[in-house]
Amino acid sequence: MTTSDASAQTSSRTCLAIVLAAGEGTRMRSDRPKVLHEIANRSMLGHVLDTVRSAGATRIAVVVGPNSESVAKEAAKHAAAEIFIQENRLGTGHAVLSAREALAHKDDDVIVVYADTPLVSAETLAKLRGPLGRGAAVVSLGFEARDPAGYGRLIMSGDELLDIREHRDASEAERTITLCNGGLMALRGDVALSILEKIGNTNAKGEYYLTDAVALARQTGHHAAVVVVPEAEVHGVNDRAQLADAERMLQERLRKAAMLSGVTLVAPETVFLSHDTQLGRDVIVEPHVVFGPGVVVEPGAVIHSFSHLEGAHIATRATIGPFARLRPGTSVGERAKVGNFVETKNAVLGTGAKVGHLTYLGDASIGADVNIGAGTITCNYDGFGKYRTEIGQGAFIGSNSSLVAPLNIGEGAFIGSGSVITDDVPGGALALGRGRQVVKEGWATAFRKAGLAAKKK
Amino acid sequence: MTTSDASAQTSSRTCLAIVLAAGEGTRMRSDRPKVLHEIANRSMLGHVLDTVRSAGATRIAVVVGPNSESVAKEAAKHAAAEIFIQENRLGTGHAVLSAREALAHKDDDVIVVYADTPLVSAETLAKLRGPLGRGAAVVSLGFEARDPAGYGRLIMSGDELLDIREHRDASEAERTITLCNGGLMALRGDVALSILEKIGNTNAKGEYYLTDAVALARQTGHHAAVVVVPEAEVHGVNDRAQLADAERMLQERLRKAAMLSGVTLVAPETVFLSHDTQLGRDVIVEPHVVFGPGVVVEPGAVIHSFSHLEGAHIATRATIGPFARLRPGTSVGERAKVGNFVETKNAVLGTGAKVGHLTYLGDASIGADVNIGAGTITCNYDGFGKYRTEIGQGAFIGSNSSLVAPLNIGEGAFIGSGSVITDDVPGGALALGRGRQVVKEGWATAFRKAGLAAKKK
Amino acid sequence: MTTSDASAQTSSRTCLAIVLAAGEGTRMRSDRPKVLHEIANRSMLGHVLDTVRSAGATRIAVVVGPNSESVAKEAAKHAAAEIFIQENRLGTGHAVLSAREALAHKDDDVIVVYADTPLVSAETLAKLRGPLGRGAAVVSLGFEARDPAGYGRLIMSGDELLDIREHRDASEAERTITLCNGGLMALRGDVALSILEKIGNTNAKGEYYLTDAVALARQTGHHAAVVVVPEAEVHGVNDRAQLADAERMLQERLRKAAMLSGVTLVAPETVFLSHDTQLGRDVIVEPHVVFGPGVVVEPGAVIHSFSHLEGAHIATRATIGPFARLRPGTSVGERAKVGNFVETKNAVLGTGAKVGHLTYLGDASIGADVNIGAGTITCNYDGFGKYRTEIGQGAFIGSNSSLVAPLNIGEGAFIGSGSVITDDVPGGALALGRGRQVVKEGWATAFRKAGLAAKKK
Repeated sequence: MTTSDASAQTSSRTCLAIVLAAGEGTRMRSDRPKVLHEIANRSMLGHVLDTVRSAGATRIAVVVGPNSESVAKEAAKHAAAEIFIQENRLGTGHAVLSAREALAHKDDDVIVVYADTPLVSAETLAKLRGPLGRGAAVVSLGFEARDPAGYGRLIMSGDELLDIREHRDASEAERTITLCNGGLMALRGDVALSILEKIGNTNAKGEYYLTDAVALARQTGHHAAVVVVPEAEVHGVNDRAQLADAERMLQERLRKAAMLSGVTLVAPETVFLSHDTQLGRDVIVEPHVVFGPGVVVEPGAVIHSFSHLEGAHIATRATIGPFARLRPGTSVGERAKVGNFVETKNAVLGTGAKVGHLTYLGDASIGADVNIGAGTITCNYDGFGKYRTEIGQGAFIGSNSSLVAPLNIGEGAFIGSGSVITDDVPGGALALGRGRQVVKEGWATAFRKAGLAAKKK
Repeated sequence: MTTSDASAQTSSRTCLAIVLAAGEGTRMRSDRPKVLHEIANRSMLGHVLDTVRSAGATRIAVVVGPNSESVAKEAAKHAAAEIFIQENRLGTGHAVLSAREALAHKDDDVIVVYADTPLVSAETLAKLRGPLGRGAAVVSLGFEARDPAGYGRLIMSGDELLDIREHRDASEAERTITLCNGGLMALRGDVALSILEKIGNTNAKGEYYLTDAVALARQTGHHAAVVVVPEAEVHGVNDRAQLADAERMLQERLRKAAMLSGVTLVAPETVFLSHDTQLGRDVIVEPHVVFGPGVVVEPGAVIHSFSHLEGAHIATRATIGPFARLRPGTSVGERAKVGNFVETKNAVLGTGAKVGHLTYLGDASIGADVNIGAGTITCNYDGFGKYRTEIGQGAFIGSNSSLVAPLNIGEGAFIGSGSVITDDVPGGALALGRGRQVVKEGWATAFRKAGLAAKKK
Repeated sequence: MTTSDASAQTSSRTCLAIVLAAGEGTRMRSDRPKVLHEIANRSMLGHVLDTVRSAGATRIAVVVGPNSESVAKEAAKHAAAEIFIQENRLGTGHAVLSAREALAHKDDDVIVVYADTPLVSAETLAKLRGPLGRGAAVVSLGFEARDPAGYGRLIMSGDELLDIREHRDASEAERTITLCNGGLMALRGDVALSILEKIGNTNAKGEYYLTDAVALARQTGHHAAVVVVPEAEVHGVNDRAQLADAERMLQERLRKAAMLSGVTLVAPETVFLSHDTQLGRDVIVEPHVVFGPGVVVEPGAVIHSFSHLEGAHIATRATIGPFARLRPGTSVGERAKVGNFVETKNAVLGTGAKVGHLTYLGDASIGADVNIGAGTITCNYDGFGKYRTEIGQGAFIGSNSSLVAPLNIGEGAFIGSGSVITDDVPGGALALGRGRQVVKEGWATAFRKAGLAAKKK
């Protein structure tokens, strides 16, 4: 009944992937189209499109609902897909036929996938296509349901799929079947259109059901098969709780892959990865870390707890956090150190540079072995433009300094603590910009006495 | 045996709720009375009192132990409850009779609830009262136990509850019963006192057991019934591990309700809500966020990771965090932005205001579209009093500024980076308060040479 | 078959613990030897060595692989262990015999433990030794496997252990056995060497298997027994996912012990303890807190969310966080308060001292009741040395101050907001070090007009 050696046989066949993305998603209770909701920082639609591309789709059709410009736009970001609009939502069979023009190309294989079923893997799609090369005209993706109530049941006779019976139409006996319909389907391209066009809508809801393709194929002498995968692969998202479940399952996959490749996740359940996070061998990630999109961490770097990284490159043996926030455009050099309550944005730190505490580095280039004191702020914005701060190798920036950009601080320069630096500083120089200390003896004692007296009144 | 249509029938009946809050809680190993320990930022007693009020209790009696002023005080915060002191802890039957004066009013229904069983819902209490209106004199709350060992077993004959058998007194056969006593009980008000007064203490421990009310009611010709609810509803808290379990179960309820109403919780297991947290449609909450009491987030706002909010109102489409701490009295305007390592307290931010980094805003009013630079501090305290900072619309506060309150900065004013501002600034003006930069060429080179020389010695 | 009363009987017997730490750990995909990977901030080897010491080992032998200086060094940190090098990895039997010299002492008991099985408890090791005092020559540690596939099966006859059958060698019938070999073994010291030397390598892999000791002992007329423990006790670590599992299981133990001793962990699954964390009665730990090594928290202190503590002592009723980072050498006095975005390192805070916001305190002594304003930085480093800041009792440090060490601020002194303080300040004095405010009326209006004009071009 299952097929595990399918992928090798599908490589030379052309494949049309029809991605159904027209669902209303009412239960999401959202102003955003359902398939644009994200897991691991990528839209569900994006996940599915990237997966069908990995699975070897040579043509991609995305079926969207009316007024779905944002869905079409997101699709364009991920694949050179043709967009088809399903004007009225008359069922899955109707949705697939909205891509009639794509089907007319009669690619070798057709796969129908759902943009709200984002966890399906490329391997699964390859498996699903397998039986098409071995004589089946229709292949359903099945799963053994822990709780089959509500799912369509797969009616089998040996390896042959006879029919898909909706839960409400199933007999007592059929309801004991636990092999259920995962929704995804593969069809042989030469017969797909003719089978799909036979689907009718003479049922209670008056809808066209894709599942009818199985019986219709068999009625015209074709074979139908099933490929069985774990339930997680066909997890559908209809509300935010199911969205969170999908996120959790995807995170578990990403975390496990990272760990088995040689990354220590001290507490994997508290680390959130993006779909594209790259972590090198012997990277250590402590509890409570969030990776936004676009992060690469080279081998041996350490990400301490309570760190938040996006669009950042971390070189080998660098250490980040705890409580570091790295924003896009950050590059941290080898053995460099970004410490607590430090934010970087569009900032390059050289080898061995250190920025330990309570600092904002925006639009800055920090040379090798520079030491940035606690409380340093690059003042990169004046209400109109953003300006850069360049700090030469080996410079020492005293604590609580304000570096007013555009600014160039030369190699090996010293900035005195608490300075406001508005003009360039030559290499090897000391720059100060602060008030001179004055002391008023006894002032505090008198102030306190007066304050206490006032309180008594 | 179960009753699901009860709530509608109870609305016109008066109801006395007796809340037992006298337990010593030895296993909590705490100096604080057990029922004052909190879940979702409200005491267990508070949860139960609010629940009995929602369930339509028209009179509330709280039974406390001796020296329980703090418990009585907490009760007063949540309900107009009469407090009864149980001087000696002689069992649950004895505890209930401590509220004899309340029972003497002969309200239609009496419900007995436990302040250390905080997850019971108002719906459950309504169901529990149901059979009283249909002829039962005593109703026990039952649950199907995963592991019944230790619990009292409900001895049934059809729908009639015959007796509650303590685990230690149960026969081999009775121990196979998995329907267990959840402790809560409803009694018909006209007979409650007479039944309760029959409870004796001729048992091993010499205690008066409320569970005896079932057999005693039946002995005097009354009916007894059971209402069955999920085990979580009757989860009791006797130690800190059970307290953490209760917290987890309550958080799961709160998170699920938020998600199903249209809130994205990317990783619900890492988000902690308060009992009163209000999150609007299409609010997105990233992983690792903590909501203290009194937070309202309007639709479309985004709460980034590692944020901590208490007593704050967030307007629509505002963004908070990551690493933001909003303290009581914070109000964030539409599309306003509170960024990383920013603390606000008693601070109002206007529409579109931005405070991005490393800032403390205390006792401040920030106008619309104001930009607060990184490292800005409102100096609101002088050791005696707290003073306000007012910043007019469209002002620009340069980074690392110290704003010494009381202070008024006019509309559209500019504050130069690194300034200490002690006097009011007119609208449209520039204010600076910082030392002028001086540069000593070659100083750093010489200093470094001397430092290295000293190290060699 | 099991033995639960063993520990009392073992106290007077000498015991050699052979700790096998020579495994290559290929699946860890790490440059670090496997047994040096950490759980709860201590190496797995360190856990096992501390455990065998607690279990009463009187002699400890650690078997390491070639080029394992770092493993030997870590062992030396935890116990006065003899190090034996296993030059070639020829199986567990061979590994144990690498410690032949230690075995030659013929201690009463010999226990063989694994440095990659870090969760075994001292109680379990005591139980394992039990049967040696009652006639057994070999004792295996068994567990009831949820999924026995892959494990060696324990072939029993009544209480007698007949043999350990590797999964691949087991018959159909033997594979139904769920009692499996946990790997750990105890041997009677007087016969251990002679039994171990009989182990051969005539098997598929040509390795010497310690498990053969069971059959060999019986062949020479000795008894073999089994002690059964929960599966978690013998959890082995071979890859990073199993390392994370071990961390989770250990954290669960540590958290539960803390809770049952009277600590509130609001969300235990988000709190990470070190093996040595000490939390007093009625300490409250909010969600999302990380304890590094060396933390002691006295009764009644509160650790708010998003705090990170290492090497810190927190006195009673102090409050920490949220967003506090306490580094080694921190001591927080009674009722003192460390607030958000505050870092302390090598810093002592007196009773009632307050450091609320955005502050770095390094190498500092802060007197009782001192108030440190937001944004204060101790400038303790000049690129060469570190210097101390001493602040006398009752002083008030204005916000955004830079305290340039070495520095002494007297009792009750006031520091004006935004000051750079470079010289000592006498008690009761006011010190200021900041620029005087200047205002340029209309400047901002003109600047903005020019900026907008420039943008239009």
